Amino acid sequence: MTENNKKHTHEYYMKQAVKQALKGYEAKECPIGCVIVDNSGRIISRAYNKKLTRNNPILHAEIVAIDKACKKIGDWRLNDCDMYVTLEPCTMCAGAIVQARIRKVYFGAYEPKSGAVCSCNDIFNVEHGHNHSVEFEGGLLEEECSEIMKRFFKEIRIRDQRSTN
Amino acid sequence: MTENNKKHTHEYYMKQAVKQALKGYEAKECPIGCVIVDNSGRIISRAYNKKLTRNNPILHAEIVAIDKACKKIGDWRLNDCDMYVTLEPCTMCAGAIVQARIRKVYFGAYEPKSGAVCSCNDIFNVEHGHNHSVEFEGGLLEEECSEIMKRFFKEIRIRDQRSTN
Repeated sequence: MTENNKKHTHEYYMKQAVKQALKGYEAKECPIGCVIVDNSGRIISRAYNKKLTRNNPILHAEIVAIDKACKKIGDWRLNDCDMYVTLEPCTMCAGAIVQARIRKVYFGAYEPKSGAVCSCNDIFNVEHGHNHSVEFEGGLLEEECSEIMKRFFKEIRIRDQRSTN
Repeated sequence: MTENNKKHTHEYYMKQAVKQALKGYEAKECPIGCVIVDNSGRIISRAYNKKLTRNNPILHAEIVAIDKACKKIGDWRLNDCDMYVTLEPCTMCAGAIVQARIRKVYFGAYEPKSGAVCSCNDIFNVEHGHNHSVEFEGGLLEEECSEIMKRFFKEIRIRDQRSTN
């Protein structure tokens, strides 16, 4: 089997990110999932949000995935790697993606309130002082990715209402 | 001694950040240092860049310091804490500072090529979709902070010249 044969569709990789988001959901974390894929099509890291579990505001799914990927390949440069993440990254994560030199980011749902790729900012643009630009494509399995988030926030609202009644 | 008596000057805290930068310098890391101070004036974390040592692009001084501070106080919210860092933070770190809800950032040298606080972007501004704005003050012990960086990059240039000769 050649390297090329191992590659899956973009939808396949995003489905793997969705699986991670669901793990986050079960762990009562904000359900965002992420996978990083190397040039041969191999998934080198899978992660979900660990902010609450580990009491650390930095541990968004993308950050945990970058950390794992670097450990896996023994290099801080992820030049030939692509990221699949269920939600448009925030400023911190978009900046981390630039620092890690990831090639392209595919994200599911747009984040109109704080998305830093195209909704509220355009962090991947080299004009912000980076010497590495990151390609991106939003809206991959958008409905599925967005559905998990809606369900999560709906449950939080119900819980909050119950606790105030 | 009251809580207030424990507080030091801004210069004192920045000196502690400079000490961390020098540790980074000795470790052959890009020499950036950082400390986080709680509301009583106590330094709750000290850190320098660990990117090369730990092969991880995320481990800038600010990120390592936030991680340590959260572990120390057992909370992901650093609301009443201030950060002292020798260089203007990049996009990733500025985003992380917002996520950690740090109150105010004092930085030493401005970073005209990639500083995301005021030089190349204004990430602390709530207009970028955050619901938390961070105050900042740049140029504290600027010369001293900038000198360490200059020395570091000068040595890299000399090393590079030697290796090409």
